[in-house]
Amino acid sequence: MRFDLPSVLVSIKDGVIDLGWGHPSSRLHPIEAIRMASEKLLASDDSTPLQYGATQGFGPFLESLSGFLSRQPAYGIPVDPRHLFLTAGASQGLDLACTLYAPAGSTVVVEEPTYFVIEKIFRDRGLNVVGVPTDSQGMLVSELENLLLDGLKPSILYIIPAFQNPTGLCLSNDRRGQLLSLANKFDFRILADEVYQLIHFDELPPRPFLAFDEGNRVISFGSFSKILAPGLRTGWIHAAPEIIKKFSDAALTFSGGGFNHYSSALIREVIDLGLLDTHVSVLREEYSVRSDAMHQALQLYFGKEIEYTRPSGGYYFWLTFPEGFDSDRLLTSAEKAGVSYRPGNAFSESGKFSRQIRLAYTLFEVEELKEGISRLHEAYSEYSIE
Amino acid sequence: MRFDLPSVLVSIKDGVIDLGWGHPSSRLHPIEAIRMASEKLLASDDSTPLQYGATQGFGPFLESLSGFLSRQPAYGIPVDPRHLFLTAGASQGLDLACTLYAPAGSTVVVEEPTYFVIEKIFRDRGLNVVGVPTDSQGMLVSELENLLLDGLKPSILYIIPAFQNPTGLCLSNDRRGQLLSLANKFDFRILADEVYQLIHFDELPPRPFLAFDEGNRVISFGSFSKILAPGLRTGWIHAAPEIIKKFSDAALTFSGGGFNHYSSALIREVIDLGLLDTHVSVLREEYSVRSDAMHQALQLYFGKEIEYTRPSGGYYFWLTFPEGFDSDRLLTSAEKAGVSYRPGNAFSESGKFSRQIRLAYTLFEVEELKEGISRLHEAYSEYSIE
Repeated sequence: MRFDLPSVLVSIKDGVIDLGWGHPSSRLHPIEAIRMASEKLLASDDSTPLQYGATQGFGPFLESLSGFLSRQPAYGIPVDPRHLFLTAGASQGLDLACTLYAPAGSTVVVEEPTYFVIEKIFRDRGLNVVGVPTDSQGMLVSELENLLLDGLKPSILYIIPAFQNPTGLCLSNDRRGQLLSLANKFDFRILADEVYQLIHFDELPPRPFLAFDEGNRVISFGSFSKILAPGLRTGWIHAAPEIIKKFSDAALTFSGGGFNHYSSALIREVIDLGLLDTHVSVLREEYSVRSDAMHQALQLYFGKEIEYTRPSGGYYFWLTFPEGFDSDRLLTSAEKAGVSYRPGNAFSESGKFSRQIRLAYTLFEVEELKEGISRLHEAYSEYSIE
Repeated sequence: MRFDLPSVLVSIKDGVIDLGWGHPSSRLHPIEAIRMASEKLLASDDSTPLQYGATQGFGPFLESLSGFLSRQPAYGIPVDPRHLFLTAGASQGLDLACTLYAPAGSTVVVEEPTYFVIEKIFRDRGLNVVGVPTDSQGMLVSELENLLLDGLKPSILYIIPAFQNPTGLCLSNDRRGQLLSLANKFDFRILADEVYQLIHFDELPPRPFLAFDEGNRVISFGSFSKILAPGLRTGWIHAAPEIIKKFSDAALTFSGGGFNHYSSALIREVIDLGLLDTHVSVLREEYSVRSDAMHQALQLYFGKEIEYTRPSGGYYFWLTFPEGFDSDRLLTSAEKAGVSYRPGNAFSESGKFSRQIRLAYTLFEVEELKEGISRLHEAYSEYSIE
């Protein structure tokens, strides 16, 4: 190799425990499951996985996925494969949803704070982004209603209903119903980014947003990035048949055939071998342990200096520091101390989250998490003294 | 399977030789190459292919691809891996190019006729589509210049410079230079869809459009769909570093990491095993034989009743029938006779191509191609009598 171009997305400085990345750890990647699935997929001379795939997605994959989702306690509703659509990951699905449902110049409503890349994706698509504040139950629906009554006309609303990024919180059942009422009354679609739905610990999250929808308002985005392997670039949409048809009939879909056809055929084998069910259980267990470890380290080092709601699933802690704290300012000294994180204002264009930081507990091992929190407190102590 | 959802994109009626699909034949899918590459990729416990990939693309893949392209006589220029970007196929790359270079409401120039799905993709993105006529040398640059002088301000120009879809013709060297001059003068980008560049027969096509570009006007789109396997949903962009950076830095790219990371790691093994070079040679040979067979059958059955330029590469024959012919009208009786094709007007919103039909010779075997042309002539004879 002459140029030594990077292989993976994350580049972490040597010696830094970077708690800023919401990525699975390399140790947990199911390489053996992928090996077994590949062998099974390629054992015959059937070349179907190499041809242009069906626009809705590879049929046998959709069937296996529907079975997998129906079996998951956190899904809690039976899934008809005719209501699923294959994507090349949640981001690709969301981007295509913009093409189909949010013409440039229209408005998208997001949570404040929200997934830090999504606002840029929407801006790149020429959309106006309007943030609505959240509390411990999720988006403040009453605030949204006021905006709508004042004349706001969004084409879509983007929301992360379960184990939200960055707050780790779930949108309550009541709020789900209220949001749907508003979507019906003011005629917009709800893009529900539910990629963390299956990563729960002891208690189950609310059922998927779609379970509350009696019409065709909710488009649910799922992904294998958080439950199998992000490199496979494969996900799905779950929605009413009319919506599935719109995605399937899109010119972009037809042009290349079903998105990530080969990967979906590989994942179908993973599912049929029972390895996805197993892997998701392993991830729930591992992340639960890591989340506990981070909680204990936070209690040990920070105690009452910070506030947070302990996550019951997902990838993140969302910490609130005392009045006057500036999470952007702490970052430099934290990195000097050998730890990193995402400052709160990365998650909102509002600039309201200087007191917050997001920590992910998925990429590092327990001992590293403890060490990371220790270093963070060290940096914070110096920051407080300054 | 309860619902029997389709597996692949193409659905061909039983008994019909459908010459309308520009797809590779199942018999030619390199299943053994994919098997060998998978074994090599998964032999170690390195889980890099399962993690989020580098935004520009998996580094080792870009290195191997640059070597492969540099070795191809039809490429004819050395390729720096830093000038390559991994896509999930040419269509995905083109869609992202719209986000980055063609804001909704702006204008895209296309050839008349052009790839029949691309106009719909552009329309779905809120773009105005303006067609420019072509002759045997490709787009009539003088006609485009007149439009530009009259005030047309395109953001992008989409063109298929080699073995064009549907005409099978190549844009001449002179026209390439002239188009670049116009792009510089009137400030637009050229999206060069060069997915057929490597599928040449005895003589080489002009060098890739980028070879003529001294600035940063041309974005070349390549794809493994036409040279390896469409189901892998993987392609690349070749362009100046400034353009590669723009694609790599796009929010959508960052959100999921490099497009189709795992597939690209698999294809890297195919390339490093020497199997892509071999496969492309096989395809050139096979398609050359099929193209000859179709030419001979056309001469045998139609003779001077139709006109066409014999293709020197690519996938297609573009036939012109006598004055007054209506290719849409023939379709029904052709399908009754057990053959199908794409009518000329599928390739342009202008409605100017009633006398044309496009035939692909890649999906069927030689004997089927002969039988298909025989049936087409049978249907045409009845049509002429009516």
